[in-house]
Amino acid sequence: METFAQTQRTTLKRLPKRGVFDRELVYDILDEGFICHVGFVAEAQPFVIPTGYARVADHLYIHGSQASRMLRTLEQGIDVCVTVTLLDGLVLARSAFHHSMNYRSVVVFGQATVVSGREEKLAALRALSEHMIPGRWDEVRQPTEHELKATSVLTMPLTEASAKVRTGPPIDDEEDYELAVWAGVVPLRLVAGEPIADPRLPHGTAVSDSASKYQRGQRGIDSV
Amino acid sequence: METFAQTQRTTLKRLPKRGVFDRELVYDILDEGFICHVGFVAEAQPFVIPTGYARVADHLYIHGSQASRMLRTLEQGIDVCVTVTLLDGLVLARSAFHHSMNYRSVVVFGQATVVSGREEKLAALRALSEHMIPGRWDEVRQPTEHELKATSVLTMPLTEASAKVRTGPPIDDEEDYELAVWAGVVPLRLVAGEPIADPRLPHGTAVSDSASKYQRGQRGIDSV
Repeated sequence: METFAQTQRTTLKRLPKRGVFDRELVYDILDEGFICHVGFVAEAQPFVIPTGYARVADHLYIHGSQASRMLRTLEQGIDVCVTVTLLDGLVLARSAFHHSMNYRSVVVFGQATVVSGREEKLAALRALSEHMIPGRWDEVRQPTEHELKATSVLTMPLTEASAKVRTGPPIDDEEDYELAVWAGVVPLRLVAGEPIADPRLPHGTAVSDSASKYQRGQRGIDSV
Repeated sequence: METFAQTQRTTLKRLPKRGVFDRELVYDILDEGFICHVGFVAEAQPFVIPTGYARVADHLYIHGSQASRMLRTLEQGIDVCVTVTLLDGLVLARSAFHHSMNYRSVVVFGQATVVSGREEKLAALRALSEHMIPGRWDEVRQPTEHELKATSVLTMPLTEASAKVRTGPPIDDEEDYELAVWAGVVPLRLVAGEPIADPRLPHGTAVSDSASKYQRGQRGIDSV
């Protein structure tokens, strides 16, 4: 099983058993998430900005307007930390102290670089779209040259990454198991509702396949 | 309506109409979220770490083990950026270019300080618990002095904060509205499932009120 090399900054100081370097697990978490939180430093101030992303093989892609302050800052090749977190449940213990959450998170360290080649840029935009909603790219109007120029795409290699996972029931102090307190997990998941048509859509337009068949991926979850 | 003072780092460079400084909206988003992403710099490296939090009046609280590397770093009074993001929907436009997401996010800048007083610490831990699942605190065994000492609680004033919100249908280029492409929004929300009992719970233990009546708050959402 392929793993990421463990580095000082990806090594958990506490609860090391929650840290995992398995590449497949990291990819599963990245593929299930929608939003990453990008951390960087500008003028000595840390910023944490949410944005969409996609994974293609061993690279992460983000995109935005050519005018985006975040992208322009990242383009300078500074250190970046990208974190993706999936919340799976509330862990209700018998003591206040042992309450927790079930989650799966990934932290990626590295530097981003601009994707300048037209073909790689288009492939990345397609991946960003397909990651959000599979099948959508082929249903819609493709980007014009002007739109491509107005869009910045950045990529980051997945070389230094780690996952952190908590699953299962609460772990209480042994003497607390005798307390008459219900304990367990309230599972949480992100659920897609019925598609809502744009009010400007002609009456009777059929919902496209990408939206009508859309389901949140639950890959990689065997239990909460 | 009370607003946060707009500062250089909370001012959006692009799409300024998506930025809001209304204190009530910021509080609604913070109160609905579970996980914040804490950004800070340690040895010139940005870190983004997910963790639970609670808001009490105009302060944010986070907590963790006394041994937590993040908390020990934040205790030094360094600059912090705390971001909370709620994902409300996938915005499907007629063109690939205008795809987007509906979301509500809050960014808070400041420094954290340790909560050292026993009463404030206990009140903060209660708030952290009640924020996760209302009513739970009074059902469970309260913290011992040893547990209180093993827990660090940090607080951050909500003085420099802003929200960013996107709602509603896609905004397409005028000429694209004639395309025969379905467009609209796939709403997304975090949903709680049936509580799962701890396998070590005596058979027949009734699910506690906090868990059986638990519902994800949807405050502040009028539409997707």
